[in-house]
Amino acid sequence: MSEITRLHTGQRSSKIVMHGDTIYLTGQVGTAGESIQQQTRECLEKIDGLLAEVGSDNTRLLQVTIWLADMQDFAAMNEVWNAWVPEGHSPARACGESRLARPELLVEFIVTAAKP
Amino acid sequence: MSEITRLHTGQRSSKIVMHGDTIYLTGQVGTAGESIQQQTRECLEKIDGLLAEVGSDNTRLLQVTIWLADMQDFAAMNEVWNAWVPEGHSPARACGESRLARPELLVEFIVTAAKP
Amino acid sequence: MSEITRLHTGQRSSKIVMHGDTIYLTGQVGTAGESIQQQTRECLEKIDGLLAEVGSDNTRLLQVTIWLADMQDFAAMNEVWNAWVPEGHSPARACGESRLARPELLVEFIVTAAKP
Repeated sequence: MSEITRLHTGQRSSKIVMHGDTIYLTGQVGTAGESIQQQTRECLEKIDGLLAEVGSDNTRLLQVTIWLADMQDFAAMNEVWNAWVPEGHSPARACGESRLARPELLVEFIVTAAKP
Repeated sequence: MSEITRLHTGQRSSKIVMHGDTIYLTGQVGTAGESIQQQTRECLEKIDGLLAEVGSDNTRLLQVTIWLADMQDFAAMNEVWNAWVPEGHSPARACGESRLARPELLVEFIVTAAKP
Repeated sequence: MSEITRLHTGQRSSKIVMHGDTIYLTGQVGTAGESIQQQTRECLEKIDGLLAEVGSDNTRLLQVTIWLADMQDFAAMNEVWNAWVPEGHSPARACGESRLARPELLVEFIVTAAKP
């Protein structure tokens, strides 16, 4: 049996799932009501924190899917994203428009990363 | 060459693709016209069936992406989801709003799981 | 440390990320303003080109997520897709509606594939 490790496991989802050399994070959102910039910063800080728990970091991102509730926030989200991604370590990425679980949530990040 | 195994392979997609210790399932939908609860149940039963074919099950989910045609169905979908996920084995998960291939389809589940 | 290889690495994303036996491609789009058929063809040609750079090809697709800006383009996109996928090698696939980074972009393909 290939081993699976789950951390912060709730009824609905586990914030971190590890299998082989791969880390899957549950979709990260910020604080409803905050600006797109602030919500993006919060998402990326949460990703930093989750990856740090398992000894990884944002130089080891593999694939990131970004959902924006409104594509008009694309440029503002990218500005925060570009400042966060370590030079030379950007992941495969896709960004599409998708309304999220609550109307005030503006962005969600779905991350696959590599174990250290 | 790393080995790839495909099952139920049609022109457009294979219902199951296995590579290394990872299983990718094609997006699962229920019966158009049924309620969100019923469509969710059907999706999850299909996932059970596909995973069983390759000796896996819903204790080995890694990452699940859920598309709801209307985010107002979030709570009703979650109720069925929460009853289905085995305690202590929830995957990384994300749920966004996305209209599906036919207007009466209310939910689609995209599953990555671990081989036994 | 499990090894990560990135190709065509920009500030925002890397067009190709490889880890273990898996290849992640950044979301591929066509030329804004072209028809859905033409944009689909362009996406699939770009995927062919990226996979060829790392010695892989479209017989080794694992999971493909397709975003259509308008689900009314489903049949036209599928026609081009079906002609492109090598018989017996179709991936796990999901297709949902999601507006893309620019309004004239009609389709985006997010690809996970296997290394040769």
